[in-house]
Amino acid sequence: MPADQLVQNIESELSKVPLIDPHSHIDPLSPVSRSLDDILGYHYYTELAHSAGMGQTLLAKDADPRERVREIVRFMDRYDNTAQYAWFVDIARTFLGFDDSATKITASDADTLFDAAQKTFAQPDWEAQVIQKSRLEKIFLTNEFDDPLEWKRGLPGDERGRIEDSRTSSTTPSTASLSTAPRQTAPLNPDVYVPCLRTDTLVFQLHLPEVRRRLEAISGFHVHDAATLRMALAKVFLHFTRNGAKACAISLPPTFHPAKFDDEHVYEQMHFHDFHDLGPGVFWMIAESCRDFRLPFDLMIGVNRRVYEKGVYQGQDLFDQRTSLMHYKDVFNAFPDVTFPVSVLTSGQNQELSAFSWIFPNVLPNGHWWYSNTPPFIKKDLTERLTCVPKTKLIGYYSDAYKLEFVKPKYGMYRRILANVLADEFVRGGQMSETDAVALGTHLLRDNVREVFKV
Amino acid sequence: MPADQLVQNIESELSKVPLIDPHSHIDPLSPVSRSLDDILGYHYYTELAHSAGMGQTLLAKDADPRERVREIVRFMDRYDNTAQYAWFVDIARTFLGFDDSATKITASDADTLFDAAQKTFAQPDWEAQVIQKSRLEKIFLTNEFDDPLEWKRGLPGDERGRIEDSRTSSTTPSTASLSTAPRQTAPLNPDVYVPCLRTDTLVFQLHLPEVRRRLEAISGFHVHDAATLRMALAKVFLHFTRNGAKACAISLPPTFHPAKFDDEHVYEQMHFHDFHDLGPGVFWMIAESCRDFRLPFDLMIGVNRRVYEKGVYQGQDLFDQRTSLMHYKDVFNAFPDVTFPVSVLTSGQNQELSAFSWIFPNVLPNGHWWYSNTPPFIKKDLTERLTCVPKTKLIGYYSDAYKLEFVKPKYGMYRRILANVLADEFVRGGQMSETDAVALGTHLLRDNVREVFKV
Amino acid sequence: MPADQLVQNIESELSKVPLIDPHSHIDPLSPVSRSLDDILGYHYYTELAHSAGMGQTLLAKDADPRERVREIVRFMDRYDNTAQYAWFVDIARTFLGFDDSATKITASDADTLFDAAQKTFAQPDWEAQVIQKSRLEKIFLTNEFDDPLEWKRGLPGDERGRIEDSRTSSTTPSTASLSTAPRQTAPLNPDVYVPCLRTDTLVFQLHLPEVRRRLEAISGFHVHDAATLRMALAKVFLHFTRNGAKACAISLPPTFHPAKFDDEHVYEQMHFHDFHDLGPGVFWMIAESCRDFRLPFDLMIGVNRRVYEKGVYQGQDLFDQRTSLMHYKDVFNAFPDVTFPVSVLTSGQNQELSAFSWIFPNVLPNGHWWYSNTPPFIKKDLTERLTCVPKTKLIGYYSDAYKLEFVKPKYGMYRRILANVLADEFVRGGQMSETDAVALGTHLLRDNVREVFKV
Repeated sequence: MPADQLVQNIESELSKVPLIDPHSHIDPLSPVSRSLDDILGYHYYTELAHSAGMGQTLLAKDADPRERVREIVRFMDRYDNTAQYAWFVDIARTFLGFDDSATKITASDADTLFDAAQKTFAQPDWEAQVIQKSRLEKIFLTNEFDDPLEWKRGLPGDERGRIEDSRTSSTTPSTASLSTAPRQTAPLNPDVYVPCLRTDTLVFQLHLPEVRRRLEAISGFHVHDAATLRMALAKVFLHFTRNGAKACAISLPPTFHPAKFDDEHVYEQMHFHDFHDLGPGVFWMIAESCRDFRLPFDLMIGVNRRVYEKGVYQGQDLFDQRTSLMHYKDVFNAFPDVTFPVSVLTSGQNQELSAFSWIFPNVLPNGHWWYSNTPPFIKKDLTERLTCVPKTKLIGYYSDAYKLEFVKPKYGMYRRILANVLADEFVRGGQMSETDAVALGTHLLRDNVREVFKV
Repeated sequence: MPADQLVQNIESELSKVPLIDPHSHIDPLSPVSRSLDDILGYHYYTELAHSAGMGQTLLAKDADPRERVREIVRFMDRYDNTAQYAWFVDIARTFLGFDDSATKITASDADTLFDAAQKTFAQPDWEAQVIQKSRLEKIFLTNEFDDPLEWKRGLPGDERGRIEDSRTSSTTPSTASLSTAPRQTAPLNPDVYVPCLRTDTLVFQLHLPEVRRRLEAISGFHVHDAATLRMALAKVFLHFTRNGAKACAISLPPTFHPAKFDDEHVYEQMHFHDFHDLGPGVFWMIAESCRDFRLPFDLMIGVNRRVYEKGVYQGQDLFDQRTSLMHYKDVFNAFPDVTFPVSVLTSGQNQELSAFSWIFPNVLPNGHWWYSNTPPFIKKDLTERLTCVPKTKLIGYYSDAYKLEFVKPKYGMYRRILANVLADEFVRGGQMSETDAVALGTHLLRDNVREVFKV
Repeated sequence: MPADQLVQNIESELSKVPLIDPHSHIDPLSPVSRSLDDILGYHYYTELAHSAGMGQTLLAKDADPRERVREIVRFMDRYDNTAQYAWFVDIARTFLGFDDSATKITASDADTLFDAAQKTFAQPDWEAQVIQKSRLEKIFLTNEFDDPLEWKRGLPGDERGRIEDSRTSSTTPSTASLSTAPRQTAPLNPDVYVPCLRTDTLVFQLHLPEVRRRLEAISGFHVHDAATLRMALAKVFLHFTRNGAKACAISLPPTFHPAKFDDEHVYEQMHFHDFHDLGPGVFWMIAESCRDFRLPFDLMIGVNRRVYEKGVYQGQDLFDQRTSLMHYKDVFNAFPDVTFPVSVLTSGQNQELSAFSWIFPNVLPNGHWWYSNTPPFIKKDLTERLTCVPKTKLIGYYSDAYKLEFVKPKYGMYRRILANVLADEFVRGGQMSETDAVALGTHLLRDNVREVFKV
């Protein structure tokens, strides 16, 4: 997108706004990269390189990190047209001293960049530097329901549980990259990190004895009927809100349909069907807890897991465009006091999301998720939302990052598009002054996150 | 959208074209607003204010109109990014002397605007002024099947029936706003208003004894089988075409599927199932009447009623993107002599509508409806239609207005987008002269409405 | 779309790239038009003229070609807004000496153009002229499974079978137009034409005895179980690859769902159900053959046949937007070594196609098909693909042409859009140099076709 003076002015003003990033997969005890392998081990790069022909040998856990990086960079001339490549160029320029005037990163740059990263990332204040360069004020995490969150209370890190990546099965590593660098024992900047209760496991895996064991361990309740399940959930929510959690979240397949189950049905499923098919009802109970504990409930709708069975780690999930927010009609009606920030995976569903947010006070469009997080989809979806949803309800963006270095390039991409859309849709036609447009953009970038999540 | 000289020229020429508005909810006996409450009581404002946090107390029928207006205006700084807000600014400037240089309407403007409206709308020739300022030549109405339409024959108004708002249940008020100002006894400009037979009630509510009683009252036929239903429908059509009706219309849920029912099946449903589930067959019979009485049949496809159960009046309906024009394949094939102007609720269905209109001589794209009536959707849908459907089949726009004051801002928004699209897609690339582009735009704005509806 | 200097430069460079067109319906023995009736008999013109009101009398096989052309041209002032009209203007200017400064073709031009075409198309080197003016290096065909392809081996043409148009039933003529001019006995430029095995008949019509008879005739196998079917298919593939075929292809309805049938099920369907409902399994076996014979398998997904039953020849097919690539999940997983260039009929499915291509190494987006082959859809779909799919996987375009004269205007339209997208998305924002953008465009236009199809 071309940037004339007006767009540059707006973008420049927006870049001064401190960020509160309402969704990420950051591990507060290992928030920044330790090597370039942490950056390029991000699934966007492994899946694009693999899709473009790279074999999976070097993607194995025990492969040499430098070799892996070399190979992923070597394949870049097959995917240097993508938005994800542009993020990497931004990272290389901002953090690794890559020459501003060079327009391309090529195979021959791999070692230089790897070495620069080794040196740069080893600085003791690297985390603080990244936070400062990204103007990051706070960032939300993704925490399993039984995460002890002891770092929020100053406990030693080796006592704490693992932050599970909700996109992974229990046998996969919990970090985005393949590296095994040790984590800190306590966050260096605890105030920056905001816990968020991720509930996929509770909704979709309660039939696994191990999950029920974990739920009993964290809550003290042996779940055997609706009442004990409700009490266990309340304990989990209490644990999270006491430790500063500001949101509950879940990702959902396109076919999912929440439903209120009566207690007898819950009993029946637990006792006669081994806790299977309880998902719709557990979802409903979690919404009840969100109401009782005043937590917004982030819904991320549309993902089918493990579609490409032999895909790279985290590069196996896709979607079916045939889905509808009508599945959530009953929930939106039944919980007027719960705020539902909703992300949809497909741009084709954006008009539904816009219309539901236009009509339901408790439904809000939330960011640009995954397969819709590239410029053409962001531009389209953002423009549609901006012209029909109250501006105080638009949660503009989140990074979804696994390492803090990605906050800056991702938000940078978003701000550039936002500045263009504000200029084209509001300022050039005389509907809004430049100042008002910047204020509107600030609502999307920051104000609404603060208001919705009470941070 | 920016407007360079070319766009301004095209828009200026298009703004001289007298309008024939082929779909509205205007009441010819109360066509203009009596107070600002009539303007801001329009569901677009109540639903946006409510969605942005306004309570429903002031939306009650007996609430003070001035207080209601103040509250809706007070919430505008939460939705001043929307297209609907821009319509209101246009109304304030055009009709209420709002300062052209002010870019925003704020809470402090509410009383000034309310008072200006009281004075302005009280002028005896207000209706004529609005018609003249909007360059409005004719406007189609939405009439219940048993509307006596006596104003078309010069009968006194207090003898006539009510014009029901087809989006409402029978217990809701028939006008868009909540005010209760008395209506005129006869239209001041009867030639401007064109009756249109709305058939939702017949298709979806024939199981209600009251509806059958009304049908018997207007037609003289006691409906008890397919033959009497056909005769009753014929009487209704005769009544409408004699009184100048130029179209038949219906709005339909995403799942609706018309079907030809044989007479035995109709008999069975009437006698053994209390007139339930006759909709698909009644639709088919209405299409037969459209053929026999040479009326175009407007289809407005995709609305689910009462999705947000506690939403504001007329702000409860939404949609499911999973719908297809394939449901209408049999109807389009069976009635080659019936013209079907089709509106779709979702922009995602616009390619289907474009392709069906490209192939079927009797299918035409009709306007930009409801949730698709904001600039980004209009621009996308219009551009798609313009490059693949014969230009003589494109019915560009309708206001869907409840009060005449909305014709100007809505058509103004449309013309601005149309001028941009004509400039970008046809003139700048050298494919068409500016004059030809204006002629193409005039087809969409006026010529095709005249030809299709024979007005 | 406006074209500034940057866009003009890129377009100019792209127009120098020799074309390899990976999908058409060209008959190598009658590749160019013999009269203007061959051009305007193309279904895009007959269906638009018919949709705009032209009767079908002159579309009959025995109608006078000059009269037919006059009528189709006479109706052009009803569809001169369409992309297809623009193709015709391009053909008239490039090949028929139509005055460059005239912006419109009107009824009065019909005879002049018809006469010019008679004279021009009669030149003995007309085919070579068109190939040269279009910078066409190679073009893929659409061949029925039992096409003898003897022209590839230098056999006399009158011994060869017919190239069926896969969009037609067996009773319709095999060429796009209605003319009956005799074909050559051998291609003048055999190296230009690349056979492609079209498999719709095998997958969807194996229940017809005539189809099984043809399969036995070409393969030598009497098909009566899974084993003989596999052998027959292998023979067909052998015949095609020996004769230079570079792809296998099929078009599929929105509801189609491939499946691996076990041999018993195949036996059952053959012997107890008259070879019905074997489609999903035959598709699977064809994918096996693609693997064994190393042919890419072009999937063209989404077409419903004969929706408009009385439509013009080839103007009867439409689609249902409710379809998903998830139907092909098992196939994509089961055949990692088969390359699947995929075309989707609806732009709404483009994000699925982009995401599947982003993740699956063996899935590639292929061109802009049929109802999505007009500028707004191309621009949207191309931009989406370009920002998230590796550039080496993007097969930019194919002409789908029935006569060689259409290659130039169709590719011309595509290059213009491609140049605009490259300029807007990559060059203006500083992400890529102009030279790199041209190289990227060349990947889409030519390099990837060469690499994917090994031509």
